[in-house]
Amino acid sequence: MADLILYNYFRSSASYRLRIALHWKGLPFEYRAVHLLEGGGQQHQAEYRALNPAGEVPTLIYQGKPVAQSMAILELLEETFPAKPLLPKDPLTRALIRQFCENVNCTQPYQNLKTIQFLDKTIGVNESQKQQWLDKWLGGWLQTTEKLLEKHGGKFCFGNEVTLADVFLVPQLYAVNRFKVALDAFPKTRAVNETCLTIGAFRDAHPHRQVDTPAELREA
Amino acid sequence: MADLILYNYFRSSASYRLRIALHWKGLPFEYRAVHLLEGGGQQHQAEYRALNPAGEVPTLIYQGKPVAQSMAILELLEETFPAKPLLPKDPLTRALIRQFCENVNCTQPYQNLKTIQFLDKTIGVNESQKQQWLDKWLGGWLQTTEKLLEKHGGKFCFGNEVTLADVFLVPQLYAVNRFKVALDAFPKTRAVNETCLTIGAFRDAHPHRQVDTPAELREA
Repeated sequence: MADLILYNYFRSSASYRLRIALHWKGLPFEYRAVHLLEGGGQQHQAEYRALNPAGEVPTLIYQGKPVAQSMAILELLEETFPAKPLLPKDPLTRALIRQFCENVNCTQPYQNLKTIQFLDKTIGVNESQKQQWLDKWLGGWLQTTEKLLEKHGGKFCFGNEVTLADVFLVPQLYAVNRFKVALDAFPKTRAVNETCLTIGAFRDAHPHRQVDTPAELREA
Repeated sequence: MADLILYNYFRSSASYRLRIALHWKGLPFEYRAVHLLEGGGQQHQAEYRALNPAGEVPTLIYQGKPVAQSMAILELLEETFPAKPLLPKDPLTRALIRQFCENVNCTQPYQNLKTIQFLDKTIGVNESQKQQWLDKWLGGWLQTTEKLLEKHGGKFCFGNEVTLADVFLVPQLYAVNRFKVALDAFPKTRAVNETCLTIGAFRDAHPHRQVDTPAELREA
């Protein structure tokens, strides 16, 4: 059995975060695809729920034990594989980077597949209301993010080194683009994203370059 | 100026988490109430947004600098005031406790005032749909939580010591009760909550015992 096994899905932004961190730290891992749509969603199957009772991706198997929630897993990787750190030493800067990450974490529920499905099927929203919903929450997050980057940003979200903030930013920007939320008013956010996407770890983790990426989306 | 200033609101569950941790660690703090409803919400005023561009509570002023997001602040308190720890030393157990906390963090957006207001005013949900929404997300969280407590729980969420998991559990149960989501099927969750509420730090932090608690809710 591989030391690290990642149950994940190519398009899940929380999965994408973990792939970036694993590639960044140079940690080999076994990729196990969990298809969120096939057969009503493989994340709901009993075998998977035994690993992750929330029925969500990602789950990391670490020392044979399942751990879920991307932030919890990223802190675990940081504590146990400290080379190529994603958090600096200074407690206040660590706190500000975690604040940035949690802003993403607390926005993601609004755009999750299960949320959109519930709005569609149970609440019965129309396409225009769905876009209003996404614009409200993802757009609000972009406004906060741009302000934080004006204060703390450089080449990356916090100065000129890659941190956990960038690991959260890039997958969220992928979601923003996918959901057609306007990015024009956020030049700093776009610039940091573009810089990150030139880095190997971010490229290798991209949703369009995974084993479970559908052929029509696959990029070299 | 006090060393620690907490901008918060009596009923906000993220604020409640911080009050528990501050009381638990015996850290004195200045309480500054931010009323989320008065005048359209004090959290949206320019003066407050300068501290917290997301316009959310809580914000902690630490060494004169504002930090937001309850998880980020709790990690900061844990790193800089390590007495009466809320995380154990073992990395895997720390990860599982953080997983538990993030499950709460990722449920809270569904019940947030701003979310409910948006569903009401912009989507135009009726009372029955609103309750379906709350039952779906808070009920789902309860199911996951009960399973995690069956695996890891004792007197508290993780064994017989208070941890960050309990700091997240109790405010979320307050929300579950407030939103009338059924708790009958979750005996372990209820038992841990009741045990926590007998502890001084949890009592002192309770929404019904704050300076901004309205008279009709105030408890001794």
